[in-house]
Amino acid sequence: MAFHLLERDREGAREIADALNETLNKVIRCRRCNTFSEKQLCDVCASPKREPDVLCVVETPADLESVEQSAVFQGMYFVLMGHLSPLDGIGPDELALDRLASLVDEENISEVILATNLTAEGEATAEYIHQLLIDRPVKVTRIARGVPVGGELEYLDHGTLSQAFSDRRTV
Amino acid sequence: MAFHLLERDREGAREIADALNETLNKVIRCRRCNTFSEKQLCDVCASPKREPDVLCVVETPADLESVEQSAVFQGMYFVLMGHLSPLDGIGPDELALDRLASLVDEENISEVILATNLTAEGEATAEYIHQLLIDRPVKVTRIARGVPVGGELEYLDHGTLSQAFSDRRTV
Repeated sequence: MAFHLLERDREGAREIADALNETLNKVIRCRRCNTFSEKQLCDVCASPKREPDVLCVVETPADLESVEQSAVFQGMYFVLMGHLSPLDGIGPDELALDRLASLVDEENISEVILATNLTAEGEATAEYIHQLLIDRPVKVTRIARGVPVGGELEYLDHGTLSQAFSDRRTV
Repeated sequence: MAFHLLERDREGAREIADALNETLNKVIRCRRCNTFSEKQLCDVCASPKREPDVLCVVETPADLESVEQSAVFQGMYFVLMGHLSPLDGIGPDELALDRLASLVDEENISEVILATNLTAEGEATAEYIHQLLIDRPVKVTRIARGVPVGGELEYLDHGTLSQAFSDRRTV
């Protein structure tokens, strides 16, 4: 791509550079939920239609978009911008977990939904946040583990199948 | 494969034919749980170590093997040998649901776990069995729907994500 631009489309390259620079100047972090935004408060945080006392914790702005697109959640978000990963030097300070804790205290949050990924790092991050909030008067929940929609038992890994059995629900 | 056997390995073809015939003669259905077995009672049904009052309903013998390999379940099985599929002419009679119902009555089953697939047909079959058992004194449960182990929110379909949020659990 770099060679193509240099050889044949130097004007296009300048446009991409300008667009990137403009984005870098415009896009900041929402001061409440930490996601990318062009304003001090992102659209979700600024909306009066959201439930103000339910807080969904996700790893990245892309995860936030996924949840928004599924239209299942009407509350507020907090975006960690990553997950705990000691080998990469990412600890609680890098994830702004102190800001998350003071948000829970200040905004009278009644439920925190831990929607980090179901990977090892995501699970560890969820457990860390659970411990961080354990003494506060807030309900902490985790998104359900189990069989995905359309899933067939024959092709599931053993971990997912075990989880689906131990978390089974009365119908 | 057929041409290869006819051209170069007629003896091998005879061995395959004999093996298939032997299997067809030997393998019958377990008279209790309906799965494939070489004996009147399959190994699971004959084992004294299983919990006799928990019954897991699966679609196929392959599903039964999956659950067995995940080592999460210690009860008994009932194998439907398919799922409800009116367009293919598969209704309640073809799935031996009357046998399932009398099994629940006769063996003092305390819980029926519906472990059909999370496909449209599997869900419909589970719902049908739920209705069939609704007046009996037995707890009916469904395996958990949600995010599979290792799942990342960014790549999940909306249906699974919705399910994971609405079925979230207190930690």
